[in-house]
Amino acid sequence: MKREEIVASVKEQMPERRWAHTLGVMETSVLLAERFGEDPVKAELAAILHDVCKYWRVDEQAAIIRDNGLPLDLLDYDKELWHAHAGAWIAKTRYGVEDEEVLDAIRYHTSGRAQMTGLDKVVCLADYMEPGRDFPHVHIIRQEAEHSLEKALLAGFDGTIRFLLDKGKRIYPLTLEARNGLILELDQ
Amino acid sequence: MKREEIVASVKEQMPERRWAHTLGVMETSVLLAERFGEDPVKAELAAILHDVCKYWRVDEQAAIIRDNGLPLDLLDYDKELWHAHAGAWIAKTRYGVEDEEVLDAIRYHTSGRAQMTGLDKVVCLADYMEPGRDFPHVHIIRQEAEHSLEKALLAGFDGTIRFLLDKGKRIYPLTLEARNGLILELDQ
Repeated sequence: MKREEIVASVKEQMPERRWAHTLGVMETSVLLAERFGEDPVKAELAAILHDVCKYWRVDEQAAIIRDNGLPLDLLDYDKELWHAHAGAWIAKTRYGVEDEEVLDAIRYHTSGRAQMTGLDKVVCLADYMEPGRDFPHVHIIRQEAEHSLEKALLAGFDGTIRFLLDKGKRIYPLTLEARNGLILELDQ
Repeated sequence: MKREEIVASVKEQMPERRWAHTLGVMETSVLLAERFGEDPVKAELAAILHDVCKYWRVDEQAAIIRDNGLPLDLLDYDKELWHAHAGAWIAKTRYGVEDEEVLDAIRYHTSGRAQMTGLDKVVCLADYMEPGRDFPHVHIIRQEAEHSLEKALLAGFDGTIRFLLDKGKRIYPLTLEARNGLILELDQ
């Protein structure tokens, strides 16, 4: 499927206000990919599709995970995590995306994972800091992103973990592994 | 080996100031075991031995882990975690402790683990809140411990995770799993 067809189709899957968020992630992904030596075309494709099924009914998202051998432990954690894995499956099967790097960047854009690729980091970070985002420490993330993909993303994950601590909610193990992995990379 | 012999021997393995901490953990473990229906004799034995090799040289602690098939990933994380696993091995091989419940309570007293037993929780919590402990949120832990082993320990782990976030240090995955497990138990 061509870029324009994918864009038009994804736009229909979500409320307009949320489409503005996807446009922000697209723009920021391209910018970060260019800044940190990743492929801007792949980054933009992952960004277009990253929230493709975020506004689908949660039971549909759960069914995609359950029926297609995606990690079942996701269903024990926050629903916010489901659309990323379900989205990668939809990107592949409905939109014909075959590039595993792009699919991984969609799949891990919310949780992160132990050894994140450059493209994973770009899309995940863009999702934290696109221009429409407004939360207490977003300026720290944007500041770090001027010079370090890893430091910026670490600030993002730290914020997510603090938020879940404050709310008394469980933390998905991959997010911890992502944070541990970034610290190891930065220490090297 | 008899209780008195173990006590006398463990006392010699650490500075006097730290022996006072072990006495505090012993007293608090017995108190918590009685409060929450665990075996106070087992709890006290685990408490006596919980820091047995904490003040040994770190290369000795590392050697115990490396030479005896203990989890090698520990060596990639904070040295603070090593003495618990090494201590369980010493409790078994030098002090003749054979009760796996007691050995587990020693082994997981610092990190916690996914499905903590009642005895694991008692010793881990006693280590957080014994009378000699003095850190900003210890009063919250003590308050929760009046009525809930799980809520008190959750407050303890939350504090540890926040401390590691503040310091930019990695978090051992078992500690996250322990916290996730406690939240699941409390939700039931």
